[in-house]
Amino acid sequence: MRRRAMITGLAAVGLARCYPASAQGVVLPSWNDGLPRKAILDFIERVTSVGSADFMPVPERIATFDNDGTLWTEQPIYFQFAFAIDRVKALAPQHPEWKDREPFKSALAGDMASLAGIGEKGLLEIVAATHSGMTVEAFTRTVEEWIATARHPRFHRLYTDLVYQPMLELMALLRAKEFKTFIVSGGGIEFMRPWTQRIYGIPPEQVVGSSGVVRYEFKDGKPTLVKEPKVEFVDDGPGKPVGINRFIGRRPIFAFGNSDGDQQMLEYTAGGEGARFMGLVHHTDAVREYAYDRESPIGRLDKAWDEAVRRKWTVVNMKTDWGVIYPFEKK
Amino acid sequence: MRRRAMITGLAAVGLARCYPASAQGVVLPSWNDGLPRKAILDFIERVTSVGSADFMPVPERIATFDNDGTLWTEQPIYFQFAFAIDRVKALAPQHPEWKDREPFKSALAGDMASLAGIGEKGLLEIVAATHSGMTVEAFTRTVEEWIATARHPRFHRLYTDLVYQPMLELMALLRAKEFKTFIVSGGGIEFMRPWTQRIYGIPPEQVVGSSGVVRYEFKDGKPTLVKEPKVEFVDDGPGKPVGINRFIGRRPIFAFGNSDGDQQMLEYTAGGEGARFMGLVHHTDAVREYAYDRESPIGRLDKAWDEAVRRKWTVVNMKTDWGVIYPFEKK
Repeated sequence: MRRRAMITGLAAVGLARCYPASAQGVVLPSWNDGLPRKAILDFIERVTSVGSADFMPVPERIATFDNDGTLWTEQPIYFQFAFAIDRVKALAPQHPEWKDREPFKSALAGDMASLAGIGEKGLLEIVAATHSGMTVEAFTRTVEEWIATARHPRFHRLYTDLVYQPMLELMALLRAKEFKTFIVSGGGIEFMRPWTQRIYGIPPEQVVGSSGVVRYEFKDGKPTLVKEPKVEFVDDGPGKPVGINRFIGRRPIFAFGNSDGDQQMLEYTAGGEGARFMGLVHHTDAVREYAYDRESPIGRLDKAWDEAVRRKWTVVNMKTDWGVIYPFEKK
Repeated sequence: MRRRAMITGLAAVGLARCYPASAQGVVLPSWNDGLPRKAILDFIERVTSVGSADFMPVPERIATFDNDGTLWTEQPIYFQFAFAIDRVKALAPQHPEWKDREPFKSALAGDMASLAGIGEKGLLEIVAATHSGMTVEAFTRTVEEWIATARHPRFHRLYTDLVYQPMLELMALLRAKEFKTFIVSGGGIEFMRPWTQRIYGIPPEQVVGSSGVVRYEFKDGKPTLVKEPKVEFVDDGPGKPVGINRFIGRRPIFAFGNSDGDQQMLEYTAGGEGARFMGLVHHTDAVREYAYDRESPIGRLDKAWDEAVRRKWTVVNMKTDWGVIYPFEKK
């Protein structure tokens, strides 16, 4: 791996050097020429060039990415919540009592205004009802079915079509330069793992996320794992450095997020020795995607933005820095 | 990676085919010709040969190994417990009260007979006192110092010299055949991660183990993770399938253990679809290593052995199946 990846990697850097940065056909083609693109390419070159003062050996090249709002869209609701609502609908025939009970009543009615106000308790009730009581394998199948068929209400496309082309290019470039790429998301680990390899090139074991308790038991004589309606770990905010330590065991040198829930991951990344890259995606494009920040209940970017400005972290202005947002926009 | 590893892998199989199995210089040279060696080579060939009915695509090639008693020696006490006792001694000047308080008194006196009877509560007290109250980085440094200097009471060698040469060869062969190798151990994850890459070729993020709660905080203005005196996860017995699901997210097709604590990992592995390999190391060599099974308080092999016999899992007789046990025996 090392040798082949190194050759690919050297080729990529070689090309970046030979062409002016504005020749976007070469590396990170969907990134417009600007400070974020320059900062990323500069960082990658500094930490991977033998002899550079900032050189990082391959095992230290850990890159972590938030998922919702960083690798794919998170509006008008987190996609996993859309999945949960669809599961409520699918399971409703077995739960006649849901018709008259909140938050299920609103979920069944598709009453997004009411659902927006259900709070954490209501949200956990919906997650518990739809994400437990089955084996891990059975849950994986429901995710696979949904992700292959459900469509986004505005774009009328599969949710996995709504990933960010510039971030796909960035992750591919990092891997070519022998980085190991991880997802570190507040979303459910078992909601992401079934499709991250296919969509992002990230295998299940490189996905860190929130999780519920899982119980080992024999079911019909077969050893299996059953999902229980109990939260085990919330991989958000200060939980992100904890999750990184638990799953990866090394401090990242490169981290990308988009909201206040990513602040501690970026701080923790910044706190290590040697060269570091911290990035935030700022959603500024209401036409091609969505525009939101300090006031948004979903993906709020407020404190982390202030810290990014103060500490000179890279803030991507989606509208001006990304020439293409979704893969389907490419001609 | 895939291409280069495939070439190496094909070469390995090619050699295995060209030479009689007794030509031990070729693959698994430290394994004597016998049923376990045959079963391993046969399994690897079946699941990695294109066109074979048992072929497994690369992403499914997950192999999990217990650590204590499977990859390195675990007698006369778990090596991590030897580390903890040494830490009690090192920390004693800051804890004058330990002189008169069990289990610390016995630890300081090196009274192994008393320590053997301290039970789980006493053990947890020693672990809590020596494995918490510092940053993850500081703990890593104490592990690195100890592992580089402490010596085993019988062999007078570094503990990392007491790894099993046949298992090193097996893990290298699996990796050459595009398996991803993981440790799944009841031992502490942060006790293993500092040295598993160097000794086993397994990076920190492929180590699954028991863990304590870790808290994110700022210390002297720097973001860091502090170890708390509270158990978070016990990766033993039924905890092993749970840990595998949490960290790896896929059911292994190959698993090796040595004690009753590995029974559920092997059952869980066996319970998947398609070809599987389940192996146990039976410690039968009191001269070169240790001999123990059903009655041993450490690494007891009783129920898992019965199940292995009943289900025709591979049981390695260390005395007769391993031509070499430790790397230092090689001429």
